[in-house]
Amino acid sequence: MDWTGDTHEVDGVLERGFVLKVDGRRVPGVLWTPPDAEGPRPLVLIGHGATAHKRYEYVLALARELVRHHQFAAVAIDGAGHGDRRANAGDDDMTIFSDFLGEWSRDGSTDEAVADWRATLDAVRRQPEVGDGPVGYWGLSMGTIYGVPLVAADRRIQVAVFGLMGLVGPTRERMAVDARAVTCPLLFIQQWDDSLIPRDSSFELFDALGAHDKRLHATPGEHSAVPAEEFVFSARFLARHLAPGSDDLT
Amino acid sequence: MDWTGDTHEVDGVLERGFVLKVDGRRVPGVLWTPPDAEGPRPLVLIGHGATAHKRYEYVLALARELVRHHQFAAVAIDGAGHGDRRANAGDDDMTIFSDFLGEWSRDGSTDEAVADWRATLDAVRRQPEVGDGPVGYWGLSMGTIYGVPLVAADRRIQVAVFGLMGLVGPTRERMAVDARAVTCPLLFIQQWDDSLIPRDSSFELFDALGAHDKRLHATPGEHSAVPAEEFVFSARFLARHLAPGSDDLT
Repeated sequence: MDWTGDTHEVDGVLERGFVLKVDGRRVPGVLWTPPDAEGPRPLVLIGHGATAHKRYEYVLALARELVRHHQFAAVAIDGAGHGDRRANAGDDDMTIFSDFLGEWSRDGSTDEAVADWRATLDAVRRQPEVGDGPVGYWGLSMGTIYGVPLVAADRRIQVAVFGLMGLVGPTRERMAVDARAVTCPLLFIQQWDDSLIPRDSSFELFDALGAHDKRLHATPGEHSAVPAEEFVFSARFLARHLAPGSDDLT
Repeated sequence: MDWTGDTHEVDGVLERGFVLKVDGRRVPGVLWTPPDAEGPRPLVLIGHGATAHKRYEYVLALARELVRHHQFAAVAIDGAGHGDRRANAGDDDMTIFSDFLGEWSRDGSTDEAVADWRATLDAVRRQPEVGDGPVGYWGLSMGTIYGVPLVAADRRIQVAVFGLMGLVGPTRERMAVDARAVTCPLLFIQQWDDSLIPRDSSFELFDALGAHDKRLHATPGEHSAVPAEEFVFSARFLARHLAPGSDDLT
């Protein structure tokens, strides 16, 4: 793991860029920690959606919330074909999304994304200010497409937030199998009027997830209109599971 | 409104029994307030489910939570054929439930329940320690059957929690009409494996509710297995709307 030197501190949150080599792939990421962090702490992996990137607005906001209010660490990486993994930073969203649909259909796409995340988890936990504390995952839409297989594969992850996805698309059969292996407590976020993801397919994915401790939160509106309330609930939900006592449920 | 003299204080919550006459009906209720309450404050009406009553465990717990942690007032009344409105306090749940199904089918059942609640609201707000503060409604199952028409009819109620119900049963057509007139922010609680209320009928009711600001929370399990998490969220949700700033969403 090489630090890029792109380091800055904003309102009590230290942000450091890094690059990781994983099976020959260059995986750029960002680690957020409290500036004076010492010793192990809970860590949340944040998987961005298609067309977004590791420092996209909601990724950054959630990471900062987890660091500032809970003294957690948070980490995000660019997905294949996203952020600094694109040759041309100026491509528009439709081009990026179109490329993503190709990537999603590519054999090895899911396995590589899982490997990228697991290598990131290994590397980040070697930092003493992150250490081997409890780990959570947060990722909607594309963040669920690759997050479900990741959480199924890596038992270090003990709580998850998924959503904006269903048993659809080129990896739906694998997602159905991996979903059964996801047994940690989870929140599933759904947009009630999502025209990208058929409502029933979301229910199928929610039903397929093997966790007993799960809940579905649905809000009217389109795919990308997840309300602030669900980000707030996400942070509290992750905190409750990764640092018991931090949210006393009152 | 006559106080019954059944008054006691538990851990910072003053509880007072009362009886109200509404169109010749005797409506017993309980009012909860902070012991030293002075002046107007938010008020939450708590409608119990079938076979329960005004001091049923979850009613009492929610009322105490709202008083203790938010300094709100809370009030509950026995529904027709429930609690102190039954001749025989020793009847078992199946008998009470069977009677409820008859009551639900009776012409005037909904109008009378709405009138009972509105008279309760009038009477309770005349108490100086309750006053004319903002009002919320909480009621699942039977508490939604009568709560939807109540909230549709009474514009003083500005936030609601419904659930465990669908567009089913003898009043489903009226519920569908009244639901459209419910435009306040609301939370809809659903049990994913509810064998009493078909899942799709719950979605129909959620869709019918006229509010733009609404959310559906679903948890695996049967009708009566609503988890503590949803009661906690309910209290926070009511507090956020009735006392802005009390839950800063962090």
